Amino acid sequence: MSVRRLTMISEIFENNGSVRQYSAHQIIIFQSSELIESFYIKSGYVIVYDIAPKGEKKILMILKPGDVFPLIWSMKEHYKARYFYEAYTDCEIAVLRTEKLIEQTKANLEFSNYMLEMSVETIKELMLRLQSLESTSSTHKVGEVFRYLYRVHSEKNGKWRRVTPPVTHQTIAEMSALARETVSLQTKVLIDAGAVKYEKQHYHIQAKVLNANLADEEIS
Amino acid sequence: MSVRRLTMISEIFENNGSVRQYSAHQIIIFQSSELIESFYIKSGYVIVYDIAPKGEKKILMILKPGDVFPLIWSMKEHYKARYFYEAYTDCEIAVLRTEKLIEQTKANLEFSNYMLEMSVETIKELMLRLQSLESTSSTHKVGEVFRYLYRVHSEKNGKWRRVTPPVTHQTIAEMSALARETVSLQTKVLIDAGAVKYEKQHYHIQAKVLNANLADEEIS
Repeated sequence: MSVRRLTMISEIFENNGSVRQYSAHQIIIFQSSELIESFYIKSGYVIVYDIAPKGEKKILMILKPGDVFPLIWSMKEHYKARYFYEAYTDCEIAVLRTEKLIEQTKANLEFSNYMLEMSVETIKELMLRLQSLESTSSTHKVGEVFRYLYRVHSEKNGKWRRVTPPVTHQTIAEMSALARETVSLQTKVLIDAGAVKYEKQHYHIQAKVLNANLADEEIS
Repeated sequence: MSVRRLTMISEIFENNGSVRQYSAHQIIIFQSSELIESFYIKSGYVIVYDIAPKGEKKILMILKPGDVFPLIWSMKEHYKARYFYEAYTDCEIAVLRTEKLIEQTKANLEFSNYMLEMSVETIKELMLRLQSLESTSSTHKVGEVFRYLYRVHSEKNGKWRRVTPPVTHQTIAEMSALARETVSLQTKVLIDAGAVKYEKQHYHIQAKVLNANLADEEIS
């Protein structure tokens, strides 16, 4: 996304709304609550999840700085949240009445194009998540979560790519519908193979080794 | 989606592109092929899928009349397909060079808004699919596929809703990463409970009964 566009959206949120601070683990939106506001992440990470009948968290997505949520803001002024949105780390978030956001989208071609590009990016990320959940083996499921993290949430760090949010075994378990113990075990396999390492509370990934380990299509 | 908007997109595709006929099971886009065209479904259904290392089809989505694909058209002129797109039934599809589509999106505010609404709708559908795949029991997995079909692909038919695409056990298996035998068994449970029935090659769903059976949140 170009800097100019990021500046535009950030300005639209800040000139028309307000900025709030959330601490890690604080819930930003409760499932089924009625919403009239939209949110823009200035810094930090937000998880989107659902709670399964037995009480487990099922994380659908991790959102990053620059993202707008709720994801299904629907271009409607009133909105009933389908999922929980929770601060995964400390976050700084700009908040705007959704009607203002819609007003901008309907009046400003460049902004509408921007929101469209962002939505297409979200579709890409969701499809990666879907692919990973359709894996049948736990090795693949865990490998696919790392692939998603690599593609959506990593930055170059020497020969490795560093996963920017501080993801834990628990997070991976909640993203793959596996038990935490299974995730530990499978992550250790990937660490022993040299595909993944854990340093300073962040995972690091080497795509080629991960791909070879999953014996599947290339990461691109 | 309003009739006026559907007319607009249909006109943009047809005035600038051409219309093609595909037979059921014909592949429209091969994974990894280089694309310079975008597609608009005038009639019929299209499945989007990936092939797992062992050769199983993993269906990510079913697309319906009015949808545009590839889903991640990226607003780029050249595009390397990430998934297979295949005619699920006989289809009539309008085809347009993607550069024309981008030209319209960048020049026409109403069209940009339309594409945005459509993308938000796709995000909603993908999130429903994700939710269903994060289920851990096979009962829930099958139930969640029916819930997705109910929400995205059904029309009122008396007390029931009729699933519009002619979905089979095999399709449900490919959407849930379950064996076909497991799908048969779990579908029978739902049929015995009165949540689902199969008539004239189409499933029919009763949401209340399905919900009670899944003992989960409401279908909305």
